[in-house]
Amino acid sequence: MVRWEPDAKGRLVGAALELFADGGFESTTVAQLADRAGVTERTFFRHFADKREVLFDGSAALQDEVLAAIASAAPDLSAVDVVAGAFRATAPFLERRREFAGQRSAVIAGNPGLLERELLKMTALVEASAGALRERGVPEPAATLAAEAGVLAFRLGFAQWVTDTSRPLADCIAATLADLKVVAAG
Amino acid sequence: MVRWEPDAKGRLVGAALELFADGGFESTTVAQLADRAGVTERTFFRHFADKREVLFDGSAALQDEVLAAIASAAPDLSAVDVVAGAFRATAPFLERRREFAGQRSAVIAGNPGLLERELLKMTALVEASAGALRERGVPEPAATLAAEAGVLAFRLGFAQWVTDTSRPLADCIAATLADLKVVAAG
Repeated sequence: MVRWEPDAKGRLVGAALELFADGGFESTTVAQLADRAGVTERTFFRHFADKREVLFDGSAALQDEVLAAIASAAPDLSAVDVVAGAFRATAPFLERRREFAGQRSAVIAGNPGLLERELLKMTALVEASAGALRERGVPEPAATLAAEAGVLAFRLGFAQWVTDTSRPLADCIAATLADLKVVAAG
Repeated sequence: MVRWEPDAKGRLVGAALELFADGGFESTTVAQLADRAGVTERTFFRHFADKREVLFDGSAALQDEVLAAIASAAPDLSAVDVVAGAFRATAPFLERRREFAGQRSAVIAGNPGLLERELLKMTALVEASAGALRERGVPEPAATLAAEAGVLAFRLGFAQWVTDTSRPLADCIAATLADLKVVAAG
């Protein structure tokens, strides 16, 4: 494949993770990101609206995968198993980005503004998942509660996965959901 | 009780809710808030770090009440019932601020920056509640999962309460927890 700038976007993401980890998110400029990636600032802004978006670039693709998996899940599954199963189905997508995921989590954990943004994306994921469950005929409030519980299993399973490199993401999500079921039962 | 400015803080909160609802959060200035409340800007900044903090003034008091209730809960309760029960114990505190709670929720829902801040406060509440459960001897990951589930019951029960004025907050939280238990069980 011949392109004018082979994988400029991928190089920008890699440069961002390096510079955010070294100098901090706040003090890193778009000019530095572009320079490290060997592209112009103009190229940066062709790919990303701002430097924060470099870290959230995969969110839309993740959400699309989850919603498609909810829509096509087996009809006899419970609502919470549909949502948690849809997140487990995204595991291959995320396993391919494991190193990125770990570095990204560290940068976000160190910056309240980024953490706020991450939480807002998770809320959007809950709302979209609840909508996909309603499309399957799940009534409220069960749809929202199942979406919240499924996203919770994903979020905590994901956090476990980025710190414990010995376990696959799909296992971490499944184990967290099983623990949640026990805890919720009291 | 003789004070120089009787309830300046309360008047600032009321003025903020009025002005945020009328003109929007972003376009309201501290000067306008102070003017509407009949105080100086200097007085505003003696009570609040910035205009956003007017909406989050009760967060610390709420968290203190929840943590105290977790610490003093009956020893035979399950972890999730301890957390949800602690939030139900805050109901009188919030029922006294029902009008404020409704106006505040509407302002926050209309502003992504405020919603991000609210989500971050909820995350802090989960972490503090999980810590209070660990103090009671609840191990991880059960402590974090029970804290997440309890805060979820509070958050969704609270949202129900601000839209349906016929039901007490304590009932909304209890009903949401009961629904969550059914949904999590699959």
